[in-house]
Amino acid sequence: MKEVLVETSARHIHLSREAVDVLFGAGYELTKRKDLSQPGQYACAEKLEVVGPKGKLKASILGPTRPASQVELSLTDARTIGVTAPIRESGDTAGSAACKLVNPENGAELELTEGVIIAKRHIHLTPEAAAEMGVTDKQIVSVRIESERTAVLGDVVIRVSEKFAPAMHIDTDEANACCAFGTVYGTIVD
Amino acid sequence: MKEVLVETSARHIHLSREAVDVLFGAGYELTKRKDLSQPGQYACAEKLEVVGPKGKLKASILGPTRPASQVELSLTDARTIGVTAPIRESGDTAGSAACKLVNPENGAELELTEGVIIAKRHIHLTPEAAAEMGVTDKQIVSVRIESERTAVLGDVVIRVSEKFAPAMHIDTDEANACCAFGTVYGTIVD
Repeated sequence: MKEVLVETSARHIHLSREAVDVLFGAGYELTKRKDLSQPGQYACAEKLEVVGPKGKLKASILGPTRPASQVELSLTDARTIGVTAPIRESGDTAGSAACKLVNPENGAELELTEGVIIAKRHIHLTPEAAAEMGVTDKQIVSVRIESERTAVLGDVVIRVSEKFAPAMHIDTDEANACCAFGTVYGTIVD
Repeated sequence: MKEVLVETSARHIHLSREAVDVLFGAGYELTKRKDLSQPGQYACAEKLEVVGPKGKLKASILGPTRPASQVELSLTDARTIGVTAPIRESGDTAGSAACKLVNPENGAELELTEGVIIAKRHIHLTPEAAAEMGVTDKQIVSVRIESERTAVLGDVVIRVSEKFAPAMHIDTDEANACCAFGTVYGTIVD
């Protein structure tokens, strides 16, 4: 079985503990709004503005905090705010793009000198699911998504961890390009 | 040879003669800013706001005027302004989505009860080019685009006319999903 659930990640922000302190106040705890499909990950009630040279966009914060702050935009988003961000795997932020984060509630600001990326499309798998599908960590595969705009998306990276739940993550541009709306499954084709 | 130039269409507006009269004044002539790849088509200097229930976006006007006004958005754009528009071929606007057009220079407004579509991805071909590629008018094909985000886009409609120049047209979501930036060629694969 090479079928995998396809989930769309809208633009979002991961914050470091220090970034939360600057933007919300020392020791502030973000408010969990809902659990996400990946175990332990959740969307927070708080939102921030991502500000670039040409504009700003509101984005959700995902918890828990991480060692480094990271902003994941679509290429449409990046163009809207005038930021040139690289396509990277999550966590690979060295030398990525800069932006300013603003808390619209209290006016607090934080300049990120790097951390803005366009997420490389990827599939989260447990070791068991990867073995079943015959794929391995870091392998690059293609996934067929059938819809009103059927497409085969290449350059999809496999990521394997005991901590994951099986799911493919694409951004909003990719979801729109292949009409991956609602509950959609893709098939790994090579 | 099944290679075709891939061009990205940003959101844009085609206006009827009557719509130009309402938005710019009776008998107004739109100002040609630059010719487009399709013979006789051009981008105008004038811009309009496309207004939906949740927001508005600026869009270019393409000339010359057409029998019916038509607004072509990406799905990202449509979501941004809160419009639910169908994926359609250009000209197939019966029962499509509504919006308001506003001229920001003079405040003139026009309510379109239909005409907002998401353009179905398509390839313009001359009869000669179509014959060379072994495809026919209205045929649905798939096109492979090699890039940092390689993809095969299915549900691409072939359109054949003596008036066309050979080019595939995709919207900004699709261009972002397959990194079709700069001068890019796709290959018709089936």
